[in-house]
Formats: sequence, C-alpha cells, structure tokens
Amino acid sequence: MPQHSPRELPEGDPFGAHTLPYGVFTTPDAPDRPRIGVRYGAHVLDAAAAAEAHGSAHAPLLAQPTLNPLMAAGREVWQAVRAEIRGWLDGPHFHPLAEVNLHLPFEVADYVDFYASEHHATNVGRIFRPDGEPLTPNWKHLPIGYHGRSGTVVVSGTDVVRPQGQRKAPADPTPSFGPSLRLDIEAEVGFVVGTPAPVNTPVALADFREHVFGVCLVNDWSARDLQAWEYVPLGPFLGKSFATSVSAWITPLDAFDEARTAPPARTFPLLPYLDDAHAEPGGIDLRIEVTVNGETISRPPFSAMYWTAAQQLAHMTVNGASLRTGDLFASGTVSGPEPDQLGCLLELTQGKGPYLADGDEVTLTAWAPGPDGARIGLGEVTGRIVPARTAPAPGA
Amino acid sequence: MPQHSPRELPEGDPFGAHTLPYGVFTTPDAPDRPRIGVRYGAHVLDAAAAAEAHGSAHAPLLAQPTLNPLMAAGREVWQAVRAEIRGWLDGPHFHPLAEVNLHLPFEVADYVDFYASEHHATNVGRIFRPDGEPLTPNWKHLPIGYHGRSGTVVVSGTDVVRPQGQRKAPADPTPSFGPSLRLDIEAEVGFVVGTPAPVNTPVALADFREHVFGVCLVNDWSARDLQAWEYVPLGPFLGKSFATSVSAWITPLDAFDEARTAPPARTFPLLPYLDDAHAEPGGIDLRIEVTVNGETISRPPFSAMYWTAAQQLAHMTVNGASLRTGDLFASGTVSGPEPDQLGCLLELTQGKGPYLADGDEVTLTAWAPGPDGARIGLGEVTGRIVPARTAPAPGA
Repeated sequence: MPQHSPRELPEGDPFGAHTLPYGVFTTPDAPDRPRIGVRYGAHVLDAAAAAEAHGSAHAPLLAQPTLNPLMAAGREVWQAVRAEIRGWLDGPHFHPLAEVNLHLPFEVADYVDFYASEHHATNVGRIFRPDGEPLTPNWKHLPIGYHGRSGTVVVSGTDVVRPQGQRKAPADPTPSFGPSLRLDIEAEVGFVVGTPAPVNTPVALADFREHVFGVCLVNDWSARDLQAWEYVPLGPFLGKSFATSVSAWITPLDAFDEARTAPPARTFPLLPYLDDAHAEPGGIDLRIEVTVNGETISRPPFSAMYWTAAQQLAHMTVNGASLRTGDLFASGTVSGPEPDQLGCLLELTQGKGPYLADGDEVTLTAWAPGPDGARIGLGEVTGRIVPARTAPAPGA
Repeated sequence: MPQHSPRELPEGDPFGAHTLPYGVFTTPDAPDRPRIGVRYGAHVLDAAAAAEAHGSAHAPLLAQPTLNPLMAAGREVWQAVRAEIRGWLDGPHFHPLAEVNLHLPFEVADYVDFYASEHHATNVGRIFRPDGEPLTPNWKHLPIGYHGRSGTVVVSGTDVVRPQGQRKAPADPTPSFGPSLRLDIEAEVGFVVGTPAPVNTPVALADFREHVFGVCLVNDWSARDLQAWEYVPLGPFLGKSFATSVSAWITPLDAFDEARTAPPARTFPLLPYLDDAHAEPGGIDLRIEVTVNGETISRPPFSAMYWTAAQQLAHMTVNGASLRTGDLFASGTVSGPEPDQLGCLLELTQGKGPYLADGDEVTLTAWAPGPDGARIGLGEVTGRIVPARTAPAPGA
C-alpha cells in the first residue's frame, strides 16, 4: 500500500483540508474491496485504514462499501469523523487519485429533481410553451419537483449510451422511433440525505443541516425530443430515466459554511413552511463550469437559484413523506441571467441545437469560497456519449 | 407452531391451489423473524419451514425477510418453487391468517405509475383541463407514466395520515396551506419485477414473463387539491408521495394464464416495440371491487385497460433504462366505461366530491377466472384515513 503523504497541496487546490469529500474506491490489487476514501488534493486517504491505525471508534463506519452507514449515523458523528480525518492528513494511507477506481459512493434511495432556477424555468418555458406564460402560476409559490429513476443514477466517468425512443414534432403526422436527436445536459447540484425522517415529520428549514450529509454535482442527461413528446400531462419520464450522472465525491455540507448566501428577493410572500426571510442564508455561492470536449461553454452560478435546498427539503416532506438515508435531491438545471451562465444546451442554443454528438465528453466542475481564501471543491462529474445500440427494435 | 392442515377450502375461495401468493409474515411468538409465507385459503404456509422439512434446495431462498432474493432468482426457479409448494399443501406448517402479522413483502426499488385506462384519462382530462381535449395527443401512442416515491410504499393495513400541503383554486388570489380537502383513492394493479435487466437491454413484449414475478393490488392515494396546484409542468409530486398502499400478497404472474385477454382495439397503429397485434393477449380479466367502510362503490374491470403491462415494461426500458429486482410499476387508475366502474372518487363524483373523511376505510379486492372455474385472487389492499398531524406548520 502506498504510504506517500501529500502534505503539500498546490495553492488554491479545491480539495484541501477545508473540503475533504467522501467517496468509495477500490485499488487494482483489491478490486473486490470497495471502501471509503477521502480526497485530499490529488490523493485519496484510505479512511478505514487510517481509522484503524488511529484506533478510531468510527473505523467500522468507514470500512464499508458505501457511504450509507456513515450517512445514517447523524450529524454529530459526521462532525466527529471529519475532525478526526483532519488529524490523519499528515500520516500515511494515501493512494494517488490516478491509481484508484471510484464507485457510486452511496446507494440511492429516492431521487427527486427540482426546477429551482428562475432563469432556466423561464427560458425553457419560452421554448417548450411559446404560446403561454413562461413560468406557470405555481412556480414562485412552491419549488416544483418530480421523482426520477434511482436505478439509473451512475457515477462520474460512466459512458452514457444515447437513448432511443419516440419523438414527434408538431408538424409530424405520427411519432417516429430512433436514437435521440436532441441529447442534452443539465448542470445541477445534488444534496444527499443522511439522517432519515419518519413519515409525518416534516423537516423545518432550520433542520436542514441535521438531515443533509453532503453535496455533489449532477448531470441530469436529457433527451429533449423524447421529453417534449411525452411530458404532458404527467411530467418527464423516458427523456430523463436513461442516465443521471453524479460526482464520485460527496462534499460535506459543513464545508460550505463560508459560502452561504442569501437567495434572490422573493416576488411573493411565502407560506410559513417555506418562508426563509429570517432563516440563515439558504443559498450557496457555488461557481459551476461546464466543458464539452475540454472547451468551457458555460459558468452557471448556483447563487442565482430562486429556491434553496432547505426549501426543497421542507417542501418535499411537508405532505408527510418520509426521508431515507440515500435520498438524493437535485436542484434542477442551474442557469444564471447571462448568456454564458446557462446550464443546458437547450438554453445555450435557444432550442435550435446543436446538441451532443456521439463521442462528446461533458464535464462539470464547481467550487465555492472557503475560509482564508481557500476554495471548496465539488468532485467533477464527467460522461462521454456513446452511440445508441443498434439492435433491432424489440417487437412482439 | 400450529400444525393444522387446511386441506378443505370453501368452494370459490380465491386463494386455492391455483393462486398461492407470496407474502412476508411474522408470528406473535417471533416478531423479529419475518419470513416468506404462502397464502392458502384462510391460512399461511410457512414456506421456509415446509421447504426445510421436505429437504428442498430452495429453502434458503424462502428463509428470507423479503421476497427479493426469490424474485431475483428468475422464472425457472419461480416455477420450480411453485410446483414444490403445491406438494406441501396437505402437510403441516400452516398458521391461521388471522394470527400472523403481514409485512411489506418486497423492498421497492423504483416505483413507476402509469395512466393506462382510456376511460380514466378521458374523465380526468375533462375535469382537470376543461378547456382542452381530454386526451393529450401522445396518449394513444405511448403508455404515459411517471416515477413515484418508493420510500412511501406501505403494506395493506397501514393507516394513511391525511397529507398537508399547498392548494389554490383558480379563483383564490394566493395559495393556502392545510390538510388536503380532496383526499382520494386510485384503484390500480401493480406488477413486481423479479429478474433484473442491465442498462441498454430493452425488454421486448415477448419477454415480459421472464422479468415480472407477480401481481398485486395498489391504492395510489391522491390529494387532488395538492395535485391540481402542483402538477403543471413536471407532473404529480406531493399529491401522491405521502403514501402508496400495496397488498401484502404478490400473486405469481403464471396464476393468470387462463385470465389473459386481448386489450381494446387500438385507434392508431403502434410503433414496433409496442405493437402487440400479434403478441399473446396482454390484458388480464381481473375484476376489482372498491369498498369504503364496507360498502361497494365501484367494480373497475382491468380488462378494459388500453395499455397492457407488457407494453408498459417495453416502453419503460426502450430508452435504455435498467430494471432492478423490486421495481414496481402500477397500471394507473382502473376505470371502465360504466358509471359504477370508475376507480377513483374524482371520477365517481365528477370532481365534486365528497372525498375521503377521517376514519374512512378503503379496501380493494380483485379476482380473475382460473382453471376449472376456480378464482384467482389478489390480496386485498386496505387503509384507513387518520387525521392530519396538527403540529404547528414548520417555519424557519
């Protein structure tokens, strides 16, 4: 096992001692032993090995193939483990990041996708419903969301096979079937639930931190042609359910304390369970960068989101719905007001394309300001488009 | 352990030797040992105990706290186990049904709800969108569906707490918050996936039986006031996610061989992956009965569904989405053409109510014709409405 100690990090490295995101990794010599790692610069701390060497009482939580047991342990444990890990950074038990394999870091329970950027919702409304108001009447009263497919959440680096399905442009007499011609990205920020909540115990805005373990980047791949034909009246389905990529690293929520920011001014007064006028600032000043084949195409600002993650969690549970460890909820596409701040190709090209071609590789990165000028990073989420499977369309 | 052998079943009992549904039960003397049972009349066979006594190679699959391992084992195993169980019916290892506790029989992976009754979709379209065509243009070209919340799927018998949330009638100036005033049922039939499928391997219509383990009843409780305000543009969310009840018994798909029936004539030709004109009949002649507080209010015919479960499975996977053991997909509300065949109160009262009151108990039952005049039953799904929690609305 490598014993290299990466004490020296380059100035401005977003994965320094203030970040310390969790992931699950294997090494080539033990491919069947996934375990919890902590990213530090360009290295991965074998957290279980370090915990054992230090006689940590939390070693069993770290010697796991997923983050779920640690996530379920609650905020006091999260804080204790994070403090311990800071003490292990100048010791051994590191692997170079380039020499490990990263896995989906948690078992996804329910996956919910929100629609929380006013800029995005307005832009998409204009494109999808050109004859109506861009924002539906409910948009500024509640954070609109829907459930996605947990089973197709994949870790960064997983290839995305171009989906097939039905599409029908308004002028077409009948729908046709084939590979999506309008395959898009959605740059989003995801929140991962640690502490569960039983049914009928809504999570108040102030209790957000008790339940949310950490933050990740999400690319909610979207087939716009499939989506446009299917989504009325019950919402997106196959246009989204083929793949949702998440970063391999979950950055603890506490890492973003210095990046908290007030959300935009609210147009209407909000019902009490959503009213954050007197709450701690619910936004996060995360700066996202979207690249396609290495070229930056957009820099969406997460601070521009109308609805905060705390409001989303409060809304999601106000009807009595329970929370499970591993629930993932994502922000919806992050778009800012400027033309170079849009989080999907639909908006960037005003609905005209071009969309993703086979072979295109999309990467999202993000960082937020931390203490003393440090940067707090989210793990990148990357994926490459591979051609649709050309097997005969299945018939009876 | 009771050793009673319930060899004699009343004539017409829908849980005879041709049905044999699976569930998970505990006995009062061993409440921490959930295990697989098979319903036979008014008794439950302890399948693991019987398997062990007979030296069955499948005993380990049956000594489990959920059906998932058996479901994952594949159709050959399902058929072998079913044949073995028939040979155990005149032996011991039975408990009276009234003396056991029944549990959620499988771990739900993804939950998808379809919208497959033309009568239901037409009726609801008229009520929710009075100014438009009742059926959206896509409705007859693809089975419309959306993802629901797996974490709030509960077993029959679980009380349903009246959900709270936002509502706004068109004439209201602003939304208000409170317990749902329009709490409804949806009588549905659910299909439980056993054999998984990896990504990018669409399930052809003809392969339906290889993947679907069994059938259950589903009550997809719906808060119509929450739903009406929230569902445009991304579909139902909190109006559905507070509770979905499923029967405690999963009836094997093979039990319905004699009940297969052709779906209604198709209005438009279907794309090849959905075209069942030359497939085996995809409908099931299930007769559902809905009672509220013991009074029958409707008898929805499942044979009237436009889209079959095989078409739903083919559609759900055609974009490359994987299937997991434990995936549950439900038909959507089952409504027939007659006024006494409607599967929800929204339709039964033409949108005027009354809806469910606190204390109301709703029960769905269903049976299908089997061999030699036998009836094949689905386990009942029942739930009682309890008042909304009156804790202060959570604020910041």
